[in-house]
This record gives sequence, C-alpha cells and structure tokens, in this order.
Amino acid sequence: MPESTTLEHTVVLMPSGRRGRVPHGAILLDEARALGVELESICGGRQTCGKCQVVVEEGHFAKHGLSSQADHLSPAGSREAETCLSQAIEGRRLACAAQVLGDLLITVPEESQAHKQIIAKAATERVIEVRPTVRQVYVEVEAAALGEAGGDWERLQRALYEQWDLVSLRIDPSALADLQGALRAADGGVTVTLWADAEVLRVEAGYAEGVYGLAVDVGTTTIAGHLCDLRTGKLLASKAAMNPQVRYGEDLMSRVSYGMSEPQGVERMHRAVVRAVNELAEAATAEAGISPLDICDSVFVANPVMHHLLLGIDPVELGRAPFALAVSGPVDLRAKDLGLAFHPAARAHLLPCVAGHVGADHMAVLLAEAPHQQDELMLVIDVGTNAEIALGNRQRLLCASSPTGPAFEGAQISHGQRAAPGAVEHVRIDLDTREPRIQLIGQEGWIEPGSSRLTAGSGRPTGICGSAIIEAVAEMFLAGIIDADGRFNEQATDRSERVQFEGRTGQYLLVDSNSTATGRPIVITQLDIRAIQLAKAALYTGVKLLMGQLGVERVDRIVLAGAFGSFISPKHAMLLGMIPDCDLDRVVAVGNAAGDGARIALLNQDQRAEAERLAGWVEHVQTASHPDFQEQFVAALAIPHASDAFPHLKPSLSGRRAGPVARRSRRRESVSPINER
Amino acid sequence: MPESTTLEHTVVLMPSGRRGRVPHGAILLDEARALGVELESICGGRQTCGKCQVVVEEGHFAKHGLSSQADHLSPAGSREAETCLSQAIEGRRLACAAQVLGDLLITVPEESQAHKQIIAKAATERVIEVRPTVRQVYVEVEAAALGEAGGDWERLQRALYEQWDLVSLRIDPSALADLQGALRAADGGVTVTLWADAEVLRVEAGYAEGVYGLAVDVGTTTIAGHLCDLRTGKLLASKAAMNPQVRYGEDLMSRVSYGMSEPQGVERMHRAVVRAVNELAEAATAEAGISPLDICDSVFVANPVMHHLLLGIDPVELGRAPFALAVSGPVDLRAKDLGLAFHPAARAHLLPCVAGHVGADHMAVLLAEAPHQQDELMLVIDVGTNAEIALGNRQRLLCASSPTGPAFEGAQISHGQRAAPGAVEHVRIDLDTREPRIQLIGQEGWIEPGSSRLTAGSGRPTGICGSAIIEAVAEMFLAGIIDADGRFNEQATDRSERVQFEGRTGQYLLVDSNSTATGRPIVITQLDIRAIQLAKAALYTGVKLLMGQLGVERVDRIVLAGAFGSFISPKHAMLLGMIPDCDLDRVVAVGNAAGDGARIALLNQDQRAEAERLAGWVEHVQTASHPDFQEQFVAALAIPHASDAFPHLKPSLSGRRAGPVARRSRRRESVSPINER
Repeated sequence: MPESTTLEHTVVLMPSGRRGRVPHGAILLDEARALGVELESICGGRQTCGKCQVVVEEGHFAKHGLSSQADHLSPAGSREAETCLSQAIEGRRLACAAQVLGDLLITVPEESQAHKQIIAKAATERVIEVRPTVRQVYVEVEAAALGEAGGDWERLQRALYEQWDLVSLRIDPSALADLQGALRAADGGVTVTLWADAEVLRVEAGYAEGVYGLAVDVGTTTIAGHLCDLRTGKLLASKAAMNPQVRYGEDLMSRVSYGMSEPQGVERMHRAVVRAVNELAEAATAEAGISPLDICDSVFVANPVMHHLLLGIDPVELGRAPFALAVSGPVDLRAKDLGLAFHPAARAHLLPCVAGHVGADHMAVLLAEAPHQQDELMLVIDVGTNAEIALGNRQRLLCASSPTGPAFEGAQISHGQRAAPGAVEHVRIDLDTREPRIQLIGQEGWIEPGSSRLTAGSGRPTGICGSAIIEAVAEMFLAGIIDADGRFNEQATDRSERVQFEGRTGQYLLVDSNSTATGRPIVITQLDIRAIQLAKAALYTGVKLLMGQLGVERVDRIVLAGAFGSFISPKHAMLLGMIPDCDLDRVVAVGNAAGDGARIALLNQDQRAEAERLAGWVEHVQTASHPDFQEQFVAALAIPHASDAFPHLKPSLSGRRAGPVARRSRRRESVSPINER
Repeated sequence: MPESTTLEHTVVLMPSGRRGRVPHGAILLDEARALGVELESICGGRQTCGKCQVVVEEGHFAKHGLSSQADHLSPAGSREAETCLSQAIEGRRLACAAQVLGDLLITVPEESQAHKQIIAKAATERVIEVRPTVRQVYVEVEAAALGEAGGDWERLQRALYEQWDLVSLRIDPSALADLQGALRAADGGVTVTLWADAEVLRVEAGYAEGVYGLAVDVGTTTIAGHLCDLRTGKLLASKAAMNPQVRYGEDLMSRVSYGMSEPQGVERMHRAVVRAVNELAEAATAEAGISPLDICDSVFVANPVMHHLLLGIDPVELGRAPFALAVSGPVDLRAKDLGLAFHPAARAHLLPCVAGHVGADHMAVLLAEAPHQQDELMLVIDVGTNAEIALGNRQRLLCASSPTGPAFEGAQISHGQRAAPGAVEHVRIDLDTREPRIQLIGQEGWIEPGSSRLTAGSGRPTGICGSAIIEAVAEMFLAGIIDADGRFNEQATDRSERVQFEGRTGQYLLVDSNSTATGRPIVITQLDIRAIQLAKAALYTGVKLLMGQLGVERVDRIVLAGAFGSFISPKHAMLLGMIPDCDLDRVVAVGNAAGDGARIALLNQDQRAEAERLAGWVEHVQTASHPDFQEQFVAALAIPHASDAFPHLKPSLSGRRAGPVARRSRRRESVSPINER
C-alpha cells in the first residue's frame, strides 16, 4: 500500500476545518491537539474513558481520491474495543488509540470537543466555555515497593506531575484517608478530583466519572440552587426555597437588628441559611439521581448582609455608616467550614462584593450581563429591597444602590403580598369606565370584574404583588384617577364607584369583597401610592445620578434583573418614572441573572478571576450622600408627563389619550411586555 | 551642648559588643537592628508592648569621658512613660521610643533579645532558637470611610503589608468573623496571630499577648503533651496519659487487625486518640492558667501506625509488605480537622515519616539528637515494640527498624509488666550466693530478700518490668545460672534453691510468693530468657547490618532514647549483647527525645524544614529482608563472651570473674549506669 510508505499524511478535522500534515503512525489525539483541536480526555490517553471518540468520514478526500479511509487508522485493539463496547460507542474510534496511517477526514462530535460551551440566558446571549475550577483526571500510580522511599501520596504526586504536568499539589485530609484504599482497589489506577489544579479533593478507585457543583443565589427572601455537571456544564436541576431567616426579620435591616439584639442571633441566622442550602442540595441531587456528597464545588452569590450571614459574620457594620464590609474580595473556603453537607472536601467560592450595599449578587448579575464587554451603554437594574444599579460599557462602569424600600416587593402596601399563587399579577384599567381587569399568578388570561372565575370559590385573589402595584398606579394615572403628584382626583368619582373617598383621602377598589379569597376588598390606597412614589423616586434618582456622573443623557439598553424584573411591565415602569426613557424593544427582563452569574462562575474559573477584576474596576457611587440626591429625589416623586419625558412612549400614549378604548388592542400589539408574550 | 551639634554618635550594644556610628536623632531600635542586634518587638515600634526595653549604662565611655549618659537619649514621652508604668519597667527605656542624642553604652537585657533560645535536653546539648511558625503582630488599621472601596480584611492586609511587610495572606473563616468586632473595639488597633506569615489565624482587639502551642508524642502506650509559650519558648506544662487505643489492642499489629476486622474500628481508634489529646490539652492549659482555645499551633510525632490513626487513615497497609505509608512527607492541617478542640483556627503539623516502620517519632528523635550535625559516629536507638535505629554522622545517616517484639516492654514475659509503681526495676544477683537484690519503681534503695520492706503489706513487687528483665538475664549469665546460649545450667542448682528445674526446664525464683503483692512467686523462666534473646538478637542484628552497610566496626556514641532507654542499664545491655561495644561513658539515655523533637519543631519553623530535608536524606535500610539478616540473627541469639566482644567492659568483668563478691563494690564504682547515678 502506498500510504504506509508515505512519511506524512494530511488530516482534516471537522467541524473546525483545521488541517495539517502529520507523521505516519502518530496518535490521532496528539496530532489533533497539535492542530489546535482540543478533544475531551479524562483518562489521559489510556483508552478507558471513551471521551475522545471521533468519526472517520467516508468518501473521496484529498489527492488520493479514496472511497474509504477506514484503513487509514490503525485497527482497534482489545482495550479500545472493550471501552467502546462498555460505553456503547458504535462506529467510532478513540483518538487516543488510533494511529494515523493515511490521509484522513475526521469529524469531532460535539460531545468529544473539550471545553464545552454553555449559552447563558442573558439579555445579550453569551457563550461560556466550560472550564471548571474543579475537574477530574485519571492517573496510574506505580505500586509501592519494599524499601522504596515515600508514601502513596508522594507517588500520586509524582504520577500527577508525569502524566498531567501538575505540581505543588496539596491534598485534603479526607482524600488522604481514602487514597490507599482506592489505589489498592484498582491496581494503582485512580481518578483524582482537583480544585484549581492545586488541591486533591477526592481520590476514587479506577476510572470514575461524575463531578458536580452547586450555584446558589442566597436572596433575602428566596434561596435558589442550580446543580450542574461540571464536566459537561449541563444544568441538572434547579430548586428554590424560602430563606428561613425570614422568621428572624423580613427585610435586611430587621435581620441586622436581630443579630444585634439576640446574643445567638447571628449564629442562628447563619445556621438557618446553611440548613436551607443543604435541603436544596438534597432536593436537587435527588432529582438528578446523585447525592449531596457528589457535590465537589459550589459558588454563592448574595447581597452583603446575606453574604456575611452565610459566612457567620455579624452584619452589624452593614447597618450603619460607613457600611464597612468585613471582606470585599472573593472568599474561597471549604464547604464543610460553612456547615454544608457536600463532599467532605468540597469547596465554596463567594463572588466579591463591591460595597456595603452592592454585593456578590450584583457582581453575578454583571458577570451574566457583561456590560463591561459591550460598546453600547447598558443600564442594569436589579430590583429588590434595595435596587442595585449599574451603568456603563467597556470604557467605564458605575454602580450604586438605591434605598427603594420593600414596596416593590409588595410589603408596606395595604393588600400587598409576595408573588405567589393567588396574587394579582397584572392590572389594566379601562380609561373610560375605570373598570379593572386583572391577571392572577397561576391562572391563565385576564379576568373581568364579576367573572364566574371570581365568584367561584377557588382561584380568588389573595392580595396584590409588587409588579401589579406598579401597573395599577400607572394605569390609575392614565385613567385620570390620580394626578401627576399621586393624589386621588376627586372628580374621578363621577364615572366610577371604584374611586372612593373618605374625607379627602381617596382609594381605588380593585377587587370587591365578594371576589377575594379573604372576604375583604382589595383596594389601592393613597398611602400605597405614596409608598410606590417614594420607591420609584429613589430608584430613578439613583439612575439619574449615575447618568449625571457618566455625563450621558440616555441609555442604549435597560436590563431588568431579578424575579421582580421578570414580572414588571417595562412600559408601566417607564410611565411611572421608575426607569429612564429607552426604546421599549431594548428593555429586557433577564430573570434570575444573579443565579446565571453564579452558574457562570461555577463552570468557568476564568470568570471568577474576571469577577474579582471587575469588582475592583467598577466605580461605586454613593448615591444617598450625593449632594444632588435630595433635590433630584423630590423632583422624581411626581409621575412624569409621559409624552415629554419618554419620547419612546409617545406613539402609544398619544394614541391612547385620543381614543383609549378603541386603540387599546393596538397598543397591546405594538408593545409587548415580556410577561405577556 | 556639643553632642547635639555632632552629626553621628557611637553606640555600643552589650552583651554582644556590637558597635557603630549612628546619626543624631535616630531611633535606637532601628539602629540596634542595623547593627545586627535584634530586639523583641510585638507592637512594631508603637511604644505599647514594652518588649524592646534597654538599659542605659552609666559611667565613663568613649572619648567624651562622660559620667552619665542619661541625656544622650531623648527624654521619655507620655506614651513610653505609661507603658513603662503599666508593665513595671523601672529605670529602663524603650528602644523604639528613644532617639540617640549622644554616645551610648547600652545593655540589652536577655528578655529583650529577639529570637530567644531554649536549650534542648538532648544527649548533645543543643541551642534552639525560638522562631515559631505561629506568632503575633500588632497592627493599626485605618478606619473604613464612606465610599471607600474594599472591606476590613482588605484594609488589614494593606496594614500588614505596610507595617510588617507581609504579603499574600489568607485568613481563616473564624478570624474573618471576629475581624470587625476587634477593629471597632480598639479603634483599628489589633493583634494578629499568623501562621507561617501566610495565614491569619486570629484577630484580637488592641494589643494582646499570649500565643501557645502543644507538642505531642503519640506513643503506642502513652501520649505525652508539652504546652509551650510560643513567644518565649518556655515549657509551661507537660502531661502524659495512657493511649486509650490500648483497649482496642495492646500492640501495633493488634490495632491494625482491629481496624481490619471492625467496620468502625479505624474511626473509633482515631476518635479515641483525639479525645485523649483534648484531655491532655485541657489538663496542661489548666495547669498554666489558660484555655485549650489559646492553643494556636501543635506538632505531633508518632510511629507510622499511630500517625495514620491520628489522621484517620486506615493503617492496614502498614501491617503487610511492602508497608506502604499513605503519606511520608510532613502533614500540615487545621487542628479542627482532626477533631482537636484548640483555637478554631489552630494548626497541626505532623513531622515526616521515613518508612513503614520508621515514623515521625523517630524523625523527632533525630531532630533532638541531631546525629546529622555531628562528626562522630552516633548510634541512636529508640526501643519500643519495634526498635528504631539510626547510625551515622553529618556525612551519611542510615536508619532501620528491627522487629524486637514487646519483650523489652515486659510483655510476653511470665511476670512481666509495664514500668509502673510496684514493678521490679533493677536486679543484681550475687555471683557467689546467687541471691538477688531488687529495686522497685517508686521506692528508694536496694531491697534484700526477706527484708521487712517485703514482708510488710504495702510496697511489695507486682511484677518485673523490661529494664529489670535485661538486668536479670545479664546477671544470671554472670552468675553462671544460665550459659551463653541462654539455657539454665543444671549445675547451678547446687549453690542456690532459687535455681529450680522441672524436668530439664529451669527457672530462677526472683521473689518468693510471701514477698509479692500477688501472692505468687516472681520467676524468670526459660521462655522468658528465650523471648529476651530473640528481642536482643533482632536489635543487635539491625545495628550490625547498619554498621556493615556503613562499613564501620565501632561507634563513637550510643544514645538510648525513649522511656525504656531511660531505665535500662547500658552495661547490662552491652553484656547481654543488645548494643555494640562502646565506651560506657559515651552511652547515654536521653529520655523522651521524641517529645523534645516535637517541641523543637513547635518552637522553630526552620527545624520543620530541616526534618523534611532529613527525612529525604536519611537512608532507610530494610533489615528484615536483608540477605545477611537470618545468619546474623542466629549468631546474635547467644550471650556473647563479654571480654572478647566488649573491650570496654573488660576491666570490670575480668575483675568480677576473679573475685565477684569482694570486688562488687569496686565494680559499681567504676561503672555508673545512668539509672543508678
């Protein structure tokens, strides 16, 4: 055969199209790497992991014009055949076993490509390479011999150096305790789980697969955990639970106070959150068919108070000026040190905080949305008890927090409640009749007053959640029920009995007592409107101060992060003067961006470094102590005259003003709030 | 005054005698350091710790011929005066406060000298510099300011860099949790406890003093703990306790078996030893008036099986060839990870092991005795269940373990027992009458048979301990009761009823039944003599093989380490053929050398590095598998003809042979076994 006498062959690797000349008899895996095509390999070329499988393409190729190239690779030996059989790999070859004996056109299937990529569900779609901090390698350790110096750990270190170029390794005590049993059970072949290529976390007998991580977003109200396969990057399960600290105080300040007044308060809150994370890990791993002991890495994001309580640090300093963080940089520690019941050597990583009110959760949002990688000016708002705001692009990025208070979350509102089944989620008010239509969480479609869905026993509303209050107030303004300064309009009583006055104080009857689950009417009071005005003014003032600091008049894109941001109607928020004017198509809600950021940091170690760099680079603006804050805040209390303040709202608004009822459906077509899509 | 116009002054520092010219107005502390005289300073020159105090000598000095130099230092300010008052420092100055204004003769009192030294009670007296791995520094941290980036940990790191040149620091989670409280309590002045200048273990408010360490020798039978002040090096308390693992097996092999046969056996033994160390720490700290929580560092030495069980590692591999250690290098971990109830961030360090039978305890003995720093050829023997042997000097050092079995510890001996009150400790047999004299542990002086001390109820012997068996066998040989091959001499029955035969099997009645605590006679049987012969032959063969390997015929010095070595009579050991010939003056017992070595490693971090280097440098010889072992072992079973084999024993022996009774007293004068001194 002419090929066997040729000293070099041409190899083309698809789908990248990389090609090159390789010596006769060379191992395909090595040559692919030399050509810049990284193939997955855990066993280090020992034909056991079956990860480096490739497809030899048939058909004409290159100058030889051959119709089959099967014989252009050395035949499969028994070890390769066995691995392929056990892993159900049919018609493929292992690149680590196959020698190149002739010209080849090779396809690398996606599952064999190293550094898999995940696509982050961010406002701007981002591709994240899977390059986890914790990974597994298979290594073969020589047997101990009588009279030989060094222990098994020293022999493992030598093998990891020789076979994986790893140096200066430490070993966790639990891995040390497992080492000899694993080595003896599989004649020296062990799979080692490494943290940051610096510490051995786990040693398993023989070739083993399976290394998992948990990304956790510890919110004031909700804790969400995302279980990931650290090799593939795949999201295996997501679970959320109430933050049990709620019983010690609903908002951040009341938890800080609880920690101050109760001698064991901090410890109690610390234990509560850790217990909740352990329960989440139990639930998520159960769904994925694994155990919490399989979790070897974890990333936590949280606001500063939650961050400190997770670490067992008294958050008292975060409750008073100068709002000093105990630590602002990233924190690396063992999960066990927090009380987490993962693998005994599992690690925990907390993303950095920026300032006393801008925490690791905001850093995670920035990691997910990456305004620092954009040319366009991006405004990122994460609305919670405080609103964290970031404004900027790759040139400069400012961030701040604004004390919006809990009104947006439904607290301090007469009939407010958390976003839960039964809560009013959306509100529309007919401009003419001033009759409301509502949507409820957990139920499809709009419900008119007097609908049988309300008179039936089940499915009646229990209260009104944050996003619906925003809409209700904006709609009440549009319908002329309240005026620009938020006061109830006494003239509005003429067309609707829903506008009610007691003395000079008005209220709007959203759902009458016959139609609620509680038997009490759901009303929007003057005080509710004041609370919303204060909250939205705080947010808007923060945004405006950042815009002023950056010297810009407008933003290119607005990203609303967090659960609240997912439910809010951007148009109503803009109408109310919560957010600045922007093309409505460019206002997007990204849901749990903090959780996405945590997952990104879990799956890609470079992104942890990026977060640390970013935390140092972003400029924190102290809005509350800004000399212009008070003045701007007062100015922002009113509901703006939309057509002036928001050019982007003009078309639909002017239409509505002219003939509100007729054009209603058109308005709803031209604007698509994300939660109605 | 002429001095104030002089630009430089002469300063002489006593007792070192170092001198130099220093600029007018310079701080004395800085100048002393520049002249190579290190002064203690914890507060970093802030006049608060009072550690750098010096004495200004009066009298004529230098060319100026002044009679007083008090005004050659700047006057004490209020801060210095306050510190001197609160620390009761009279008539002294703080070098960090005093400026040099004229020529000075300064004495640095011993307590002000940095790097204090301790003298190890080793065979060769060694001076150990106090340079602990864990130390305290005082630092002043700037207050947090509104809008400033970074948390308190970042500010502390900056202060530690600026004030102490410390970089790349980590912080223990418990210290992080204490950080803000400490900073706020003392306006930013905190005392930081550091491990290896790399990790912050503890942060205390204000200027604080007190950092302690525990050196622990985990023996198969006994655990000993030594509590030290890590600043002064002072030994504050020593406590010993039985190793509670004894209940799972008396010797090493039975503990290995227990671990194999009981599913929870390893964990149970691990917990038992940790509990015992915690109790020792409780007792030692109570005696010193501190708490176990004040212990911030610890060093452990142990034989390989004890070392592995302390770490929670199954020692099964140490029970079978090739006797593979799980880890041979030094192990650094947090004391908490072992279950030790010290300071939550306290560290634990295990000295390295050399091989499956030569452990960290032997490394500690080598550290304490330092044969590798000697020119003379030193033989170090640590007798226990196994005997660890080291032979060499600064050129080359060999080590081995010999399977002596437990006979030397009194086990497998008819009336053998541990060295405890009531045990026969020394035996002499009259060469003429063959009547014995004995000494008992806990009682003064020799006791003759029939003495009222034996007929009285209390204080009767309970058994015979290892050192006494050695003596008894050697004395029986000298008295002709047994012959060179260890067999009872039937002719010996003629002169003494104490030599008894049942058939052809002889025994020697050491204490009759009326005189023992048990009411049973204490006899030395033929089997006892065989057990001692096997043990001593194993030890001697090990020594001989090392001597052969090194190509030497004799040794310059013999060091007997361990509790057994302290009680043994070197002459009898030599007579019996346990140890090779050596000038008896140069055979020394050093007691708990392993504990001394642990203490050295606790107090001096360079010695930890030295131990690691030593463990890699020392050559381990596998004696049991040596081709000559069997032959030499058989040859070593006999009791040598002393006058030929041991030139150093000749004078006394030849004298005794000639007229044993008359010369007895002379013999005892010419030779002084250490335990009779």
